[in-house]
Amino acid sequence: MKIGLDTMGGDFAPKNEVLGAIAVLPELKKDSEIVLFGNETQIKTVCVEHGVDPARFRIIHTTEVIGMHDHPAKAFTQKPDSSMVVGFKYLSAGLIDGFASPGNTGAMMAGVMYTVKPIEGILRPCISCFYPMINGRWGILVDVGLNADSKPENLYQNAILGSLYAKGALGDENPRVALLNIGEESSKGNLVVKATYELMSKTKDFNFVGNIEGNDIMTGKKADVVVCDGFVGNIVLKMAESVYHLALAQGIETEFFGKLNYEFHGGTPVLGVNASVIIGHGSSSPTAIKNMILTAEKTISAKMVERVKEIFKQSTILQK
Amino acid sequence: MKIGLDTMGGDFAPKNEVLGAIAVLPELKKDSEIVLFGNETQIKTVCVEHGVDPARFRIIHTTEVIGMHDHPAKAFTQKPDSSMVVGFKYLSAGLIDGFASPGNTGAMMAGVMYTVKPIEGILRPCISCFYPMINGRWGILVDVGLNADSKPENLYQNAILGSLYAKGALGDENPRVALLNIGEESSKGNLVVKATYELMSKTKDFNFVGNIEGNDIMTGKKADVVVCDGFVGNIVLKMAESVYHLALAQGIETEFFGKLNYEFHGGTPVLGVNASVIIGHGSSSPTAIKNMILTAEKTISAKMVERVKEIFKQSTILQK
Repeated sequence: MKIGLDTMGGDFAPKNEVLGAIAVLPELKKDSEIVLFGNETQIKTVCVEHGVDPARFRIIHTTEVIGMHDHPAKAFTQKPDSSMVVGFKYLSAGLIDGFASPGNTGAMMAGVMYTVKPIEGILRPCISCFYPMINGRWGILVDVGLNADSKPENLYQNAILGSLYAKGALGDENPRVALLNIGEESSKGNLVVKATYELMSKTKDFNFVGNIEGNDIMTGKKADVVVCDGFVGNIVLKMAESVYHLALAQGIETEFFGKLNYEFHGGTPVLGVNASVIIGHGSSSPTAIKNMILTAEKTISAKMVERVKEIFKQSTILQK
Repeated sequence: MKIGLDTMGGDFAPKNEVLGAIAVLPELKKDSEIVLFGNETQIKTVCVEHGVDPARFRIIHTTEVIGMHDHPAKAFTQKPDSSMVVGFKYLSAGLIDGFASPGNTGAMMAGVMYTVKPIEGILRPCISCFYPMINGRWGILVDVGLNADSKPENLYQNAILGSLYAKGALGDENPRVALLNIGEESSKGNLVVKATYELMSKTKDFNFVGNIEGNDIMTGKKADVVVCDGFVGNIVLKMAESVYHLALAQGIETEFFGKLNYEFHGGTPVLGVNASVIIGHGSSSPTAIKNMILTAEKTISAKMVERVKEIFKQSTILQK
């Protein structure tokens, strides 16, 4: 597979991006290849400085850069030769199998909506993250920031997408899907979540196990997929990430806490769109970039597009 | 001061309640006294079994119990001789200075609304919790579960109450108040939070420092008081509590993680009402009960009622 990487969008571009790409080479599958989008001279300079032959990568030279302070939608149309726009063109044309970037998240989403577009039937794409469970397995939290205001049907679709992603990326055969709430009873929660519970309780589209509270997310006892809106999910994700740093500040390093470090996966896939797109932190370190590329590889392997299309053919509700 | 304790409402009543009351005796201030509401015989039996003279407590005998599965509002009116209802009567009459219970939270709130009532100008009371910051200080999170659906004016009042509580209970002179959000910029967040930011940015009622993200809550770098709705706050609180257990499961015990144990404070005060009311976990251990009583003592000392009344006289906005 061909994994595209935007090398110009991060806070430390292109150095961290190229170093991450170099670091990931020994860990990639045999048939995986990295395609770097960005300033060819700068990319090659980083390679040579670190004793790596630039021929290890395919480089697509671009002349423009979308920065963190650029207006997302405008930048995407006004900078046609930026690494991000060219990357999306390649993705759209099927010349690469996935595209990862630590750049401007808004511009990335504009790219998604302008080029590869949501899958037919998806109301709103969302982003997810893996989180570690103390039982040693991984869980999936969805949405972690794309849709701060969500309706029941959005949360319902998040659940479908999270469940499919757990099957594809984690190999869960029948992932338990729970709704993040403030109590176990169906009567608990805010208005949106109460209505969502009603919808989910009747579903055959995924294995709904009921509500889950904040204290049970990381135990793994109740669920493999936790569903919430992007406002709550983003706060939960960032709080979980902070636990890694709180542990470090106390001189504690463990395997479990290490998995809470954002670098461990490096990026979150956009779910519900017609291609594998991975969004990373702007300040990604080389380690984070390396792992974002591995997350991209895993997401492409998960064949999410095919899975989502398939289930949206079968699903009897919530297609508009 | 006189601190009332409902000994019949918890999952392990009255044993854990009485053991907690016994345990707290050496730690109370000189002029503090505990008043136990509940079945006198059962209370005395627990005392004697543990070699404690029941005369150490004032006991108000009651014959009924509001259970966890009782309908909150109905139970409050239908069980007039329950430990909880009698406790609220004493509180309302000024015979005790505060009332703490690990019982049915809904019934406790019915008690608040029926008897002591919200302070004039308060749209909705809320509950708060202390959380540890890695800098060694404590922060206050508000609301942590009472109002799952909140409007901007509710969050604004939460901020006033949290700020006053930080002054009274933590001794912060000018607590930094932040709005929990998914980004630092004023444009970030869901619709309610964006409107709340607008309200708060103009305030003179508290020291508003802007948005705070999930990863900064426990660092203490940005805020002493974190404001959110009860849905988000409850999830954040329970997730923080779970970190204590996740650390324990890895064989890790530290002072900081220990402060995340719910037993450490044992209860959360209801803010914005005409008396000090503390709500605890239904499954409270004796240690949790002990610390809930100390939280009650601290809350009474904070003179919240007077402080809130005073500022609501001065505050120029959001009094309805």
